[in-house]
Amino acid sequence: MIPQWLIEKKRDGIELSAGEIREWIRAYTDGAIPDYQMAAMAMAIFFRGMTPDETAALTKAMLESGAVLAWPSVPRPKVDKHSTGGIGDKVSIVLAPLAADLGLAVPMISGRGLGITGGTLDKLESIPGYRTGLGRREMERVLEQCGCSMVGQTEDLVPADRRLYALRDVTGTVPSVPLIVSSIMSKKLAAGLDALVLDVKWGSGAFMPTLEQARSLAGSLMDVGRRMGKRTAALITDMNHPLGRSAGNSLEVRESVEALKGNAPPDLEELTVELCAAMLVLGGLLPALEPARLAARERLRSGKAFARFRRMVELHGGDPSALDNPALLPGARIRESLRARRNGCLERIDAGMVGRACLVLGAGRRSAADPIDHGVGVSDIAERGRQCRAGDVLAVVNANARGACEEAMRILDGAVIIGDAPAAPPEIIQDRIGL
Amino acid sequence: MIPQWLIEKKRDGIELSAGEIREWIRAYTDGAIPDYQMAAMAMAIFFRGMTPDETAALTKAMLESGAVLAWPSVPRPKVDKHSTGGIGDKVSIVLAPLAADLGLAVPMISGRGLGITGGTLDKLESIPGYRTGLGRREMERVLEQCGCSMVGQTEDLVPADRRLYALRDVTGTVPSVPLIVSSIMSKKLAAGLDALVLDVKWGSGAFMPTLEQARSLAGSLMDVGRRMGKRTAALITDMNHPLGRSAGNSLEVRESVEALKGNAPPDLEELTVELCAAMLVLGGLLPALEPARLAARERLRSGKAFARFRRMVELHGGDPSALDNPALLPGARIRESLRARRNGCLERIDAGMVGRACLVLGAGRRSAADPIDHGVGVSDIAERGRQCRAGDVLAVVNANARGACEEAMRILDGAVIIGDAPAAPPEIIQDRIGL
Repeated sequence: MIPQWLIEKKRDGIELSAGEIREWIRAYTDGAIPDYQMAAMAMAIFFRGMTPDETAALTKAMLESGAVLAWPSVPRPKVDKHSTGGIGDKVSIVLAPLAADLGLAVPMISGRGLGITGGTLDKLESIPGYRTGLGRREMERVLEQCGCSMVGQTEDLVPADRRLYALRDVTGTVPSVPLIVSSIMSKKLAAGLDALVLDVKWGSGAFMPTLEQARSLAGSLMDVGRRMGKRTAALITDMNHPLGRSAGNSLEVRESVEALKGNAPPDLEELTVELCAAMLVLGGLLPALEPARLAARERLRSGKAFARFRRMVELHGGDPSALDNPALLPGARIRESLRARRNGCLERIDAGMVGRACLVLGAGRRSAADPIDHGVGVSDIAERGRQCRAGDVLAVVNANARGACEEAMRILDGAVIIGDAPAAPPEIIQDRIGL
Repeated sequence: MIPQWLIEKKRDGIELSAGEIREWIRAYTDGAIPDYQMAAMAMAIFFRGMTPDETAALTKAMLESGAVLAWPSVPRPKVDKHSTGGIGDKVSIVLAPLAADLGLAVPMISGRGLGITGGTLDKLESIPGYRTGLGRREMERVLEQCGCSMVGQTEDLVPADRRLYALRDVTGTVPSVPLIVSSIMSKKLAAGLDALVLDVKWGSGAFMPTLEQARSLAGSLMDVGRRMGKRTAALITDMNHPLGRSAGNSLEVRESVEALKGNAPPDLEELTVELCAAMLVLGGLLPALEPARLAARERLRSGKAFARFRRMVELHGGDPSALDNPALLPGARIRESLRARRNGCLERIDAGMVGRACLVLGAGRRSAADPIDHGVGVSDIAERGRQCRAGDVLAVVNANARGACEEAMRILDGAVIIGDAPAAPPEIIQDRIGL
């Protein structure tokens, strides 16, 4: 293989064969193809796209670049959820224990936040002692004992993706559907799943700005899942307003604990229940969505799943007393209220701008090496469609520095959209694929 | 400057400012921007192109990445010619001494061959002792003494181009007009010229496959030349059949010596005279093309320019006796004749395939580190439009290995196009721009 010939082929819009893609990824993993050739290839893929066959071959090649997990000692159906990320999206933390409490095994490998979207690992690490870096055997033991384990990617899992993901971040090649799809699906398939449910978000706080783009990404993810022999389904969901009432690491853990105790805000409950129902159906535990929704909603409202989350945290080395007493979680010294400037109906608080406010406060990273302040963020976010009067509190900024607080307040002030006429908020779940 | 932001800007089709391009090239030259970011940027430029402003800014930034030559001790007008390259294109070797003999100074910085197109440096190095690596002072002395000096690029001249050119070669980003233009023009402008004449070729043996693409490249080269304050003109020429009667390093030196002695084949004479005339006009030595053509043709046919070439070779350390006695140049042990398979009119021997035959024989490089056999190539190439009979010799393969000779013969056999009706060969000079 002459690497530049394959780059030229892709550049000129000619389909690469599965063998060529396999050889390419193998050589990249081995170091025989340097980063500069991979960067040129990634940019050519950005412009030319990939056929479904190419995308599937790339996913398979990435998957085969490292170890693939299996859980022979865990008899339950192994089902996971993947979200393309959004502001205030703490669903994983609620969903994994809930689904496990209903009989599934959820071996969840998550990422860290970068840019405005937060990462599940960062949120969990706001719990004192929680270890996200479990080895394979440790993870297996946690799964055996409580049915769910939430960890980070290990060195040996999809090494091609680890290297390519870091490269894409600095070469302007992140927003390419085939590269996104192969990155997501190779990691999820390496986790030894029987089925996968996808939450593909669109809007100002999501990776995909439009519904149409989210649909296209979901279609491509589904296609690869099916070709790889995994039961796969997807929800298309709205991410123009933050999910739930808070955004920020320990703030979201608090909200998740409340949700697991049966007090989830309506939007978080609706999405968690729908995703859980899809997991139960794909995992074969229930025959249809409607009874699965009922089971998931009932279990969530019962508050029983909290005990399972508490157990999982304990098995991961975390201090469960921080879940019982949230004052033990990292906090913020400054709390300042964002108030409505006029009477009317709250259409939304722009999710993308809430994400930027969180970044300014220190809740997120601008680049991969940045440290994170687990205690800061935005809480008490008002729900869409609420009738409000000038002076009503619409959100609270939780900050540890005065300057950052002021900048976040300014950003949030510009993020509030209040209309004159009462308007029902849009459906959070806008489409279901494969269900 | 955040490098990936500039990559994303170019990727999304937004024009880069001159300042951004300058900073980018400065950081690349300093090593602050790694090759993988430059590779992604180059591929984005391949797909998005560059505006005339961007291309000019890129050329200027590359030029400023290193030293710029000046020749205060050489009072003549400094004029050079650049060709985009073709099979059998030995024009530089004939033209530089001819133009110098007519009163111009020609400080010519040439490249090596890569792929099917040969390089002037490789041809000159088939003369025993000829040194292409002169320092600036040595080159100045040669220019003072004989008016022309043909050398290779030095380390301190356009270092950004040296690094980028090597990178483009292995990342599928060679055929991008703005990258070609900035590479050519930055090097030529660094040579301290007053004016520049371009020979932009199209056809199977050229870099640009179509006349239209050659015109577009010529237009972009002209535009940058003018913006940089250099008198610039361009010829668009046909490169579907080899130029002159031979292709291969020492073979082309022999043919050039014959041409300088007054015995140039018609196509080589026509192109050399036209380019020389353009140089004389742009250099201000003659007021119009027609008298300049007359002067150039008369001087070439007189054979007087040979003495100047001989002197230049001597000043470069070359053995002038090899010019007097071509048997001292590298040769080939095997000579085999390619014969016509039928009666008819020779439309052409496909230049691209002649180039590939030369590559097989060892006259060219597949990759930059390959060694070259200076003695091999194709000679006695019949002219276009010639009436031939089956069995007539149409070319001679000069080889140093039996297997390579056979493969070259097979390639050439498929390269011959003989038609039934007599047909005049196409004009070699198909357009003039800026003249």
